[in-house]
Amino acid sequence: MESKSPFGKVSAEILAQLAAVVGENHVLTGDGLENYARDEMLGGKSFPPEVAVRPATSDEVSAILKIAERNMIPVTPRGSGTGLSGGAAPIYGGIVLSLERMNKILEIDRNNFTAYVEAGVTLADLLKAVAEQGLHYPIYPGESGSAIGGNVATNAGGMRAVKDGVTRNFVLGLEAVLPSGEIISTGGKYVKCSTAYDLTQLLIGTEGTMAVITRVLLKLVPPPGKTEILFIPFHSLHDAISCVPEILRQGLLPAGIEFMEQDIVRITEQYSGTTIPFREHEAFLLIIVEGANEDEIQQQMDAISPICMSNGAIDIFLPGTERAKRNLMEFREKIYYALQSYGTLDIADVVVPRSAIAEFVESIKQKGVDSGIPIITLGHAGDGNVHICLMGKDPDGTLYGKTKDLMKAICREGVALGGTISGEHGLGFAKRDYLTLAADESKVNLMKRIKKAFDPNGIMNPGKIFGED
Amino acid sequence: MESKSPFGKVSAEILAQLAAVVGENHVLTGDGLENYARDEMLGGKSFPPEVAVRPATSDEVSAILKIAERNMIPVTPRGSGTGLSGGAAPIYGGIVLSLERMNKILEIDRNNFTAYVEAGVTLADLLKAVAEQGLHYPIYPGESGSAIGGNVATNAGGMRAVKDGVTRNFVLGLEAVLPSGEIISTGGKYVKCSTAYDLTQLLIGTEGTMAVITRVLLKLVPPPGKTEILFIPFHSLHDAISCVPEILRQGLLPAGIEFMEQDIVRITEQYSGTTIPFREHEAFLLIIVEGANEDEIQQQMDAISPICMSNGAIDIFLPGTERAKRNLMEFREKIYYALQSYGTLDIADVVVPRSAIAEFVESIKQKGVDSGIPIITLGHAGDGNVHICLMGKDPDGTLYGKTKDLMKAICREGVALGGTISGEHGLGFAKRDYLTLAADESKVNLMKRIKKAFDPNGIMNPGKIFGED
Repeated sequence: MESKSPFGKVSAEILAQLAAVVGENHVLTGDGLENYARDEMLGGKSFPPEVAVRPATSDEVSAILKIAERNMIPVTPRGSGTGLSGGAAPIYGGIVLSLERMNKILEIDRNNFTAYVEAGVTLADLLKAVAEQGLHYPIYPGESGSAIGGNVATNAGGMRAVKDGVTRNFVLGLEAVLPSGEIISTGGKYVKCSTAYDLTQLLIGTEGTMAVITRVLLKLVPPPGKTEILFIPFHSLHDAISCVPEILRQGLLPAGIEFMEQDIVRITEQYSGTTIPFREHEAFLLIIVEGANEDEIQQQMDAISPICMSNGAIDIFLPGTERAKRNLMEFREKIYYALQSYGTLDIADVVVPRSAIAEFVESIKQKGVDSGIPIITLGHAGDGNVHICLMGKDPDGTLYGKTKDLMKAICREGVALGGTISGEHGLGFAKRDYLTLAADESKVNLMKRIKKAFDPNGIMNPGKIFGED
Repeated sequence: MESKSPFGKVSAEILAQLAAVVGENHVLTGDGLENYARDEMLGGKSFPPEVAVRPATSDEVSAILKIAERNMIPVTPRGSGTGLSGGAAPIYGGIVLSLERMNKILEIDRNNFTAYVEAGVTLADLLKAVAEQGLHYPIYPGESGSAIGGNVATNAGGMRAVKDGVTRNFVLGLEAVLPSGEIISTGGKYVKCSTAYDLTQLLIGTEGTMAVITRVLLKLVPPPGKTEILFIPFHSLHDAISCVPEILRQGLLPAGIEFMEQDIVRITEQYSGTTIPFREHEAFLLIIVEGANEDEIQQQMDAISPICMSNGAIDIFLPGTERAKRNLMEFREKIYYALQSYGTLDIADVVVPRSAIAEFVESIKQKGVDSGIPIITLGHAGDGNVHICLMGKDPDGTLYGKTKDLMKAICREGVALGGTISGEHGLGFAKRDYLTLAADESKVNLMKRIKKAFDPNGIMNPGKIFGED
């Protein structure tokens, strides 16, 4: 890959220029680079950059980008590196621009329900700070160590999309630095805007391929009221998934509806050393219900429960104590790490119309059987976002081609059912080869022209989203 | 303007080509063109196009755009022509591409809560069709004759942004035709998407300057429950506006919070021949409260009422009957037409952070006094979107320069308070000269480069959003 690279190399002269911007302590070379070489992508290789630079201000980001642009050095922006698609892996070397020092919460505005934060602030720090002001940020992609800038760059989702939406729906404005070094500020503390093009919405989900996001203005909400969790075992995965569209068709809007198969439960129990109730059953729904008070919660539970019972539910388990609720949620959050440690080959992130989930999962299961690669599914049944885990260890790499063929078939099936290939992880490096399954040539070319409007020389996170030309 | 036009003229040969695409009956020249010459912009002049073309399909739109692109003919897309900023006025002549015949509701999906409609479908027809399926589309910009394509092109807002957001928040996907004739389809029946760039969100609010929107996939919701309206007179405008941030700070979320001054009431009463209660008072809030049932409504009213009373409200009027509620809402909807008929010179559409409304309105009132142009204000207090009406008749055009100076000062003040210059009307032709007050050179140039990625020859609705070069 590097032999045909159009990019320049990071010379000693360039290192000196970078040090003049951020100080020598924040220009990392040598051993420390392994920490900037990859993210949490399953089976992702390490791509150590030539240098990692840690600016403290937007002006420093601007100066770094000017140096990179002048010398045609590829730049890979990095938040916390918790992404799942290799978006933060500097596959062409060059500069990793780490936002880790830009971790200040600049303002929490209680009158306008907004938070203005630097891109390197973690979700955990944001949640703590807004809670202290009696407010809440509802989008939770399942990893509290993730950086807000990364959440924005991937349009991170999570369990709560069915009710609250995704990161995109809570970003009111951005500060971003173009490769030219220009610092632009977009949006503001308002929901309504018909003033020219919406650069905020355009930049969300672009995975660092257009600009470096340096600050984020987020919309906040009042703190959630009461929460209850229903954990519901089913005789079959089909029954579990099929009852979800029925719940939603009735206009009910739980904060989250998750499904998982028995195999996931087993693997996660092994990994975490904990057990969960009804573990012997085939499939499960985990439904999160929120309301202002007990009555509202009870009304929702009274409406949801009979739908589940008449669709093959075996029982409905209410954890009762706060501790038991937390255990269940923590169990859910550990699934990805359990799968990672178990040796999952790859994980799909397809989203389909919620009415098509059962059909999609059944068709994929069959493809797994046909290919000889075991498949386990889980996901966000309420919003149609299905994660399909291709299981098995692949020490000698022989499964790689087969895995990729199966992943391609999964993506193609999702698109055929009216969905698309990534619901929340982003394409990054992991899924870039599948983009053309979801977007025809006109669209891909249009996107590349839009990227050029920001990044004429192609130095911003090259090799991501789009496959090799 | 036309003498320096870079554009070609619509020749007889081009007319014949257009007729070959849509049929002679749908290629209008001569007298009928006056109907395609302007929209509802206050004081907007007529700009008859050279030809108006009425395609019936996306393929026909594609063929028309190819003809236009080949001959460098400017194209102005048009829905119902109810816009307020001259966006549909073909100021360079050329082709008006009217979507009026593309008025089919293609699908209402009760399982996924979506509607897929052609761009020329009116809001009234959409609302009727979704209601028949037991569903609802909550964004209501106050003009049921508007076309959905136009709602999308301007990111139309309305009274309900405080709770439900704006058009942007309910568009899941689009079909659009580029000037190259390429037809692209974006998004789908899902909320979560991290698959490359979000062309849906990018196209919303671009006022026909990038592509022609031909189909829209909308998100629907369950029908609203009960609605109650509180109509609240205050001793002063200051009191009325000041109590709004307090309501919202408490986490209450009415479906709408409107404010208006006595002068507006008087003008609208004259225009409509109706009267409203408490008309003798200085200022009013109209608060729309929604809930699943009477209890939820009562809870909200119980929380809102004391805040208003302790902030200078004189009384709280509940219309009681459905008829009385409808009268009040209809009164509110007539305001724009009353202002138009009264001879309002211009109307501002500034949005500011909701906490800054009182400061903004007071500062603007003073500017009105200083300039000698009477000012009346009304607007969406819940979301910070303030309409400022510059009043007076201007038969000889002598007020034009002064009006523009005042409008500039109003926009500048809105931006200084953290807002922007158009909350819901769009810039179109009416506000294009103010764009640079809200966006610096870097941003404007970036937007122009993005436009070029869609429209390299600049034929799409030229002279809109951006001022003259």
